[in-house]
This record gives sequence, structure tokens and C-alpha cells, in this order.
Amino acid sequence: MQFSSQLLENAVNEFAKLPGIGKKTALRLVLHLLKQDTSEVSHFSEVISKMRTEIKFCQRCFNVSDGDICSICSNSLRKQDMICVVENIRDVIAIESTQQYSGTYHVLNGIISPLDGVGPDQLNIESLVARVQKEKTQEIIFALNPNIQGDTTIYYIQKKLQPFNVRVTTIARGIAFGGELEYADEMTLGRSLQNRLPVESYVSNR
Amino acid sequence: MQFSSQLLENAVNEFAKLPGIGKKTALRLVLHLLKQDTSEVSHFSEVISKMRTEIKFCQRCFNVSDGDICSICSNSLRKQDMICVVENIRDVIAIESTQQYSGTYHVLNGIISPLDGVGPDQLNIESLVARVQKEKTQEIIFALNPNIQGDTTIYYIQKKLQPFNVRVTTIARGIAFGGELEYADEMTLGRSLQNRLPVESYVSNR
Repeated sequence: MQFSSQLLENAVNEFAKLPGIGKKTALRLVLHLLKQDTSEVSHFSEVISKMRTEIKFCQRCFNVSDGDICSICSNSLRKQDMICVVENIRDVIAIESTQQYSGTYHVLNGIISPLDGVGPDQLNIESLVARVQKEKTQEIIFALNPNIQGDTTIYYIQKKLQPFNVRVTTIARGIAFGGELEYADEMTLGRSLQNRLPVESYVSNR
Repeated sequence: MQFSSQLLENAVNEFAKLPGIGKKTALRLVLHLLKQDTSEVSHFSEVISKMRTEIKFCQRCFNVSDGDICSICSNSLRKQDMICVVENIRDVIAIESTQQYSGTYHVLNGIISPLDGVGPDQLNIESLVARVQKEKTQEIIFALNPNIQGDTTIYYIQKKLQPFNVRVTTIARGIAFGGELEYADEMTLGRSLQNRLPVESYVSNR
């Protein structure tokens, strides 16, 4: 692509660094911003820059936060003795959007994956164990992606939690709502048969 | 979507204002920026903001420019007496990328479209006529999209240019390279028959 302005080219190159944004999309975004008021574009860039410099990570659960302790950890209406363990911030947002969970979180910031060189020491696991010990947590719910790495992580953390009197559960795995039996993989279908639910509890949860 | 940080939410909302970017994509982009160094994110926002405040429009051809006159208009190697008339900046970039054109441009900044309330007065047409008169332009090439609005605009400008001794042409319309005859619409196919080329000129242009 040939630009007659270095300023335009620099802006396009910056946008094109973002994941999933190619040069053509970047150009479209930049030309859109070029049509906006100067004040609006400064606001855009200020908000982005401010987000990166001022955002903090909650000292208790490692979720993103505007202060030292996030709004979920400091909310007394939430069950502070229940911890949902997730891989990253995106999972917190996904679970919060269901509006079905009223406990707190613990963001591991990754998952045990020897192939990618990620061991337990690089994750927020020690802090989780310390938290369970200190806060006398009642229940840990694992909400990790259902794959080998997720299962390894659950196994590792569960071992670490054995000395404590805490209930450890994982979110249900099975056929997704709206999914079709015939397209489910054998592992999922097999497990969902093993972990079958009494119909009364299924109906009452609806 | 539920966020536990106002800073994060604001940044996602800003990205989601861009065309073709939904909330989920915006979140992905913001979380990507959150993983980058602070200096890189400040650089990103500075470049965007600087682009908007410092970019100028060439006083001669209305292309984007870093100075008062763009790099194409101030390039003495380009044919300054040949003007390619385009709708917008994106078309300049598209034509420049072909590396087949060595003249200058004139960006109309739109196209005559009574249905959208765009009349000739809102476009850079007067300045084009003045330019032809002052600069003794040899050739005007229309590179407008082939539709009713494009044809109307060509017709209008061509009338205005009649008093001057300038050659007026338009880019060829026909079956696109790699296209298939049977899928071409009747208008295009009909016109490409009318405006057929002698094979010698076709072969020599390859």
C-alpha cells in the first residue's frame, strides 16, 4: 500500500499491529477516525492510554480493577467464602455476563501447560492456596476449559488443597444447550452419560 | 457484558465505536493492549492522536498530506499536467498501489448524489475547474465508481470543462481480469462490447 502521508501510514501500521486487524481494515479504521472531530479522537487515544497506565490487578483475586481490591472482592453482597478459579480475565467477564454466580474469583493468569513451558510457579496458585488457608473458604469451583491442560491444572491444585476443609467442584461438562447429540465428540458424550443428572434437579434448575 | 473495571469498560466502548468492531472484538483488542508494555500503548495512542491533529489536506488536490502540498503534487517527476479525478483518499491509495499512474490527483471528497443530499457545491469541483484553467492541464482522467452517481458526476464536470482545451477520459469499464463472462451483468457486458479494443492495443498493454 502506498501512502502520501507519513502520519497516515504510521497510524495504519499501529492499528495493523492489533490481532486480527490487517492493513485494509486498519486503513478503514484510520480513515473513519480522520472523519471524526479532533476532540473525539483525542478522547479515544486518552481513554486507551489511561486504561493501560492506570488499570490495576486486584491484590486478592488478580482480576482487573480500578483500585487495589476489585469491585467483586469488595462487594459484601457476594459470597466471599466461595472462589471460582478461572484461567483469565475474559472468563471472569463471560461468567459475570451469565448473572448466575454470586461468589468471588481467582484468576490463575494461565494454565499448566508443559508443552508451552508454563509450570505451576508461573501461575497464581500459591496465592490461591494461601487465600483458602487464611479466609477459611467453603467452596472452590473450577471453571477451566475442558482439555488436558485444564484437567492437569485442576488435579495439581486439588492436591494442594487437600489439607484444607474445602469443597472442590468443577463446572458441569456435557452437551451444550442447543447442541446436537450426533455431533458431540465421544469424550463429551461419554462423560455426560457418566455424570447424568436426576431429572428433578434438571427441571428445577431451568 | 459485565466488567469489574470502569477503565476497561471505557476502553472497550471506545473501540466498539469503530466501524465493524463489535463488543467482543473490542474486548479482545483491549485485552491485547493490556498485555503490551505501557510505552507501546502510549505510542499507539500518541500516533493516533497525532495523525488526527497534524494531518493536513493538500491545498491543490485535497489528498491527505503532511504539509500544505502533498508529496504527489510536489514531486517534479510526476506529470503535473495530468489530473486523475477520484471520489476519496482510499481511491488515491488504490491507484497508487497499482504503480501504473504517474500524474496527479484531485479528490472530490464525495460524489454527486441528490438522494443523499450531496450536490456539486459540496464537492471540490470549483477548485478542479479553477485548477484546469490556471495550470493549463492537458488531460483529466475520471476514476469514479461505475454507477449512476459516478456517471452523473462525470457528466456535470465534463460540461464545466468544455470551455478549456483539455482531453477528458475515464478509466476503462469492462469485464474484470479473472472475471467470468457468464456472471457479468448485462450493463457491463453490453458496454464492454460497445467499447471493444483492437487486439493489438490490448496485447501491447500487457
